[in-house]
Amino acid sequence: MTKINLKELQNPIKTELLGFNSFFKSELSSDKKILDYALRFILSQKGKRIRPLLVLLSAKLSGTISERSYRGASLVELLHTATLVHDDVVDEAEKRRGFPSLNKIWGNKISVLVGDFLLSKGLMIAVGNNDFDFLKTITDTVKRMSEGELLQIYKAKKLDINESIYFQIISDKTASLFSTCCEIGALSSTENTEKILALKNYGEYLGIAFQIKDDILDFVGKTKVFGKVQGGDIKEKKLTLPLIYALNNSANSKRKAIIKEIRKGKNCNIKEIIDFVKESNGINYAIEIANEYSEKAKNCLNIFEDSEFKTSLIKLVNYVIEREK
Amino acid sequence: MTKINLKELQNPIKTELLGFNSFFKSELSSDKKILDYALRFILSQKGKRIRPLLVLLSAKLSGTISERSYRGASLVELLHTATLVHDDVVDEAEKRRGFPSLNKIWGNKISVLVGDFLLSKGLMIAVGNNDFDFLKTITDTVKRMSEGELLQIYKAKKLDINESIYFQIISDKTASLFSTCCEIGALSSTENTEKILALKNYGEYLGIAFQIKDDILDFVGKTKVFGKVQGGDIKEKKLTLPLIYALNNSANSKRKAIIKEIRKGKNCNIKEIIDFVKESNGINYAIEIANEYSEKAKNCLNIFEDSEFKTSLIKLVNYVIEREK
Repeated sequence: MTKINLKELQNPIKTELLGFNSFFKSELSSDKKILDYALRFILSQKGKRIRPLLVLLSAKLSGTISERSYRGASLVELLHTATLVHDDVVDEAEKRRGFPSLNKIWGNKISVLVGDFLLSKGLMIAVGNNDFDFLKTITDTVKRMSEGELLQIYKAKKLDINESIYFQIISDKTASLFSTCCEIGALSSTENTEKILALKNYGEYLGIAFQIKDDILDFVGKTKVFGKVQGGDIKEKKLTLPLIYALNNSANSKRKAIIKEIRKGKNCNIKEIIDFVKESNGINYAIEIANEYSEKAKNCLNIFEDSEFKTSLIKLVNYVIEREK
Repeated sequence: MTKINLKELQNPIKTELLGFNSFFKSELSSDKKILDYALRFILSQKGKRIRPLLVLLSAKLSGTISERSYRGASLVELLHTATLVHDDVVDEAEKRRGFPSLNKIWGNKISVLVGDFLLSKGLMIAVGNNDFDFLKTITDTVKRMSEGELLQIYKAKKLDINESIYFQIISDKTASLFSTCCEIGALSSTENTEKILALKNYGEYLGIAFQIKDDILDFVGKTKVFGKVQGGDIKEKKLTLPLIYALNNSANSKRKAIIKEIRKGKNCNIKEIIDFVKESNGINYAIEIANEYSEKAKNCLNIFEDSEFKTSLIKLVNYVIEREK
C-alpha cells in the first residue's frame, strides 16, 4: 500500500485552501496585546487542518466554494482550536507529569479564557453573517463534545464501559465535529438535502474511524512519529476499543488482574497491559471495526458523480486509517 | 439610609420569577449521569440571580414578560454560571492556597467541560427558538468578557494600569453582561429602539457601578458578610480603582514602595497596602465614582413612565451600591 500524502488530497482545492488560510489569519487577530500574542502562538502551531479541508471539499463536491464556505471552515477550526486549548488545562496530578502545552506557558486561567475567546470569535463570524444554519449545528456539536468528554471521564472513574458506551463517547466527542464540518461545507454550497445528509453521514463515519485509529495508536504508535507516549489513555484509565475487546474476550481471572492493574492509573504497568491487548487480538479487532466504518464513509459518497474532489474525500478516509500520527 | 432588600425589588414580578425558576430548572437537566450531578450541584448553589432579574424587569418595563423573556433570562444565567465555573479553574499556585470550589471537588478538566456545556446549552436555547437577536449580543459579550479578564491578567503581570484601562477592563468583563441582560429583556418585549438603547445603557452604567463596588469591598468588605478574604485582588496583583487612585495621588517614593510591596503577590503585606489606600482617599474616591455611575444609570430610565418596575430598577442601583456582599 502506498502511503497517502495529505498534500495530494489538498491539491484539487489548493487555491481555495490558500484563500481560506488568509481569511482565517485575518479573523484571528486582536488589538489586545496579550490576545494577539496568544493567537499568533496558536497560528504558529498549525496542525493538520483536516477539519477545514473537510468543509471545503464537501462544499466543492456539492457546488462552489464561496466566502460562506471560508466562514464555515474558520468556525470549525476555531472551535477545534478552542477545545484543544481547553484540553491543555491540566489537573494538579497531571501537572506533576510535566505536560508541555499552552498551559505550561500561560497557566490554566489563561488557557480557559483564550479557549472561550476562540469559541465566541468563531460564533461571532457566523452570527455576524446570519449563518444561522451553521449555528444550529455548531452549538449542538459543542454540547455533544463536552458531554462525550465528561462521559469518558466519568466512565474512567468507574472503569465500567462496554462497546456501546464507547461508541456513544467517540461519536459525541469526535465524530460530531467531523460530521458538522461536512454538513457546514455542504450547506455553504447547496440546498439539496440528500447531498447534505450524505456528507453529514460521511463525516460521522469518518470521525468514528479517525477516533478508533487514534485509540489504536495509543497502543502501537511510535512516540517519535505519533507525538504522544504509548499508553497515555491507559494511564488516564480511559478504556478504548482494543482494551474493551480484550477484556471482554479473556478469562475472568485475567480480566480481573488487568482491571486491577489499570486502577493504578499512572503507576500501572503499561507494557503488561499493551501486551495483553495485543495477545487478545484487541488491536486487530479495532482495525477491523475502523475499516468497516471507513467503508461506510466511502459508501455515503456513492450518490455523487466521480470527480477529483470525491477522490480526495475517499483518499482522506484511507489517510485517516493509515496515518501513524 | 434604610437597607434595601433584594426581595423587595423582586416583588413586582414575583410570579414571573417563579415561572423563570421552573423554566430554568427544566432546561438545566441532562440524561448524562455525571452532568446531571454537576448541574444539580450548581442549582443548589443558587446565587443572587441579579442577571435574570435584570432581564425580566427590563422586559416588563418595556412590555410584557413572555416565554422569550424566560429564554433570555436562562441564556444570561447559563452564561454567567459558565464563567463562574471556568473562573474556578485554578492555577497551581492558587491551588496551594486551598480554594474551595467546584474545581476542588471535580478537578480542572471537569470544570472546563461543564462550563463549555453550560455555555453551549444556553446558546442552544436561543438557536433552537430563532432568537438571533439574542445571539448577536451574547456572542459579543462572551468575547468581551474573556478579553476583559485577559487584559486584567496581562496588566497584573506588568503592573502598569491607569484609570482608562481600568474602565475598559470592567466594562468588558462585567458591565457588558449587565448591559446585555437589559438589552435582551427589552428585545423580548418591544421593538422600540429608544427603549432598548436606554435599558442597554442603564445596564452598562449599573455594571460599572457594580464592579467598582466589588473592588471597594476587596479593601473594606467584612469577610464574614462578603464571603471573600480582604485583599484577594491585591494578592493577585490586580490594581483596581481605589488603589490606582491612591498610587496616582501619592509621592513618588511612596508609590514605588507600595508597587514593590504589591509585586510580592500573595506574600505582600495586605494591611499596609489597604491602610495606604484608605489614607490616600482611594476608597472615598471610588465611592464617588460609583455614585456617579449609579446616577447615570438611573437617568437612563427617565424616558419610561413611573411604575413599580421602574422603581425596582432604580432600587436595584441603590442595592448594588449599598450591598456588603
